[in-house]
Amino acid sequence: MSVDVRRRLAELGLRLPEVSPPKGAYVPAVLSGGFVFVAGQIPMTDGELTQTGRVGAEVAPARAKELSRQCALAALAAVDSVAPLETVVRVVKVVGYVASAPDFTQQAGVVDGASELLVDVFGEAGRHARSAVGVGILPLNTPVEVEIVVQVSQTRRPSPVVS
Amino acid sequence: MSVDVRRRLAELGLRLPEVSPPKGAYVPAVLSGGFVFVAGQIPMTDGELTQTGRVGAEVAPARAKELSRQCALAALAAVDSVAPLETVVRVVKVVGYVASAPDFTQQAGVVDGASELLVDVFGEAGRHARSAVGVGILPLNTPVEVEIVVQVSQTRRPSPVVS
Amino acid sequence: MSVDVRRRLAELGLRLPEVSPPKGAYVPAVLSGGFVFVAGQIPMTDGELTQTGRVGAEVAPARAKELSRQCALAALAAVDSVAPLETVVRVVKVVGYVASAPDFTQQAGVVDGASELLVDVFGEAGRHARSAVGVGILPLNTPVEVEIVVQVSQTRRPSPVVS
Repeated sequence: MSVDVRRRLAELGLRLPEVSPPKGAYVPAVLSGGFVFVAGQIPMTDGELTQTGRVGAEVAPARAKELSRQCALAALAAVDSVAPLETVVRVVKVVGYVASAPDFTQQAGVVDGASELLVDVFGEAGRHARSAVGVGILPLNTPVEVEIVVQVSQTRRPSPVVS
Repeated sequence: MSVDVRRRLAELGLRLPEVSPPKGAYVPAVLSGGFVFVAGQIPMTDGELTQTGRVGAEVAPARAKELSRQCALAALAAVDSVAPLETVVRVVKVVGYVASAPDFTQQAGVVDGASELLVDVFGEAGRHARSAVGVGILPLNTPVEVEIVVQVSQTRRPSPVVS
Repeated sequence: MSVDVRRRLAELGLRLPEVSPPKGAYVPAVLSGGFVFVAGQIPMTDGELTQTGRVGAEVAPARAKELSRQCALAALAAVDSVAPLETVVRVVKVVGYVASAPDFTQQAGVVDGASELLVDVFGEAGRHARSAVGVGILPLNTPVEVEIVVQVSQTRRPSPVVS
């Protein structure tokens, strides 16, 4: 990834949010062995959960897709807190958990919100392996939770940052 | 793993399927940092989901075990699309999600279908850490979804294995 | 991590349990590429599941938190079976699955049992990225299942840690 990642975020009208304080005894992200492992992200606005409820019941799929995009942006902020986004060489893996009504089967479309954000920001390097899963209930009654793994440059010499 | 992995597949009467097109904005597998991360695989036949329903309700456990074996074979095809199966030195991790009736607790037996396939193909190198989880619903109403992580030879020169 | 990890366990009044035999065709842990990947751990006592039921229904959250702590200790035993705990340089990732009543949303507090154990044992090196997820049902009707990933020293010569 080049320094362009900040410019790309700006072009997309996106700003990295503050990293949300963890909801328990863990940290937002860990840099280890050339990877950054990011904790499960839930959609937060001004320190509050953006939305509650199950997708296919209280939450419409299109809304849930926006929320998963928001989770992915929060995940990038978490990455940036331990390794500059400029050092990301590949988005490796995404797991998207979708709190689902019992008959809701369009989890893939919901998690596309996160996946598309990552490709929007990183281009081909943003294309990742992914699992989308429907679950009965998530922490704090969030509709979606997204975790990601990215590979970062092992040299640890990030290219200069403009922002 | 030696080149024998192809012969082993043939001995087992198995053929790598076509890699299924992803159901969203992601890719079937990513090679990164010496690992291949494979997207969650669901059982497909001729481009259609092989079976729908929850295990312990519409789907019998024995049938679900066959389906999870099918997922693991599809996962190997996904691996092979980014790193030849000959370069696999270890199957590292499997996560098996089982869409489960509320009182179905034999997820381990279902995911054994995937685990046994991996050991059948790779021998000792196929033995992996695993989580099996029951969930309420999965994408497209698939009964099972299997994701795997394998380690591949960094040099791309596979060393001989006695299995 | 220094050799002090054994002393620390003793100070905490903890003993590594026997590694539970896997419930299927897998192994408790795999060392690969500088990481140890641990299979999903469920709370076992004398070869039997310690407790069954869903959290927020048959199982109280405080009890479930104890059980998740027990799972984390079992996970350390699994790590130790493939790489001495002294070689752990970082706990990287935890996923905690909580079998949840349909309206139970305090999964984070439950999985804190595992997270706090890891920090108690390893100090700062125990701080990890984490996902907590609520699911409908887990294998054998366990209330919680915890999987972890740790980074270990590639050289097997642990470097000093300031914790």
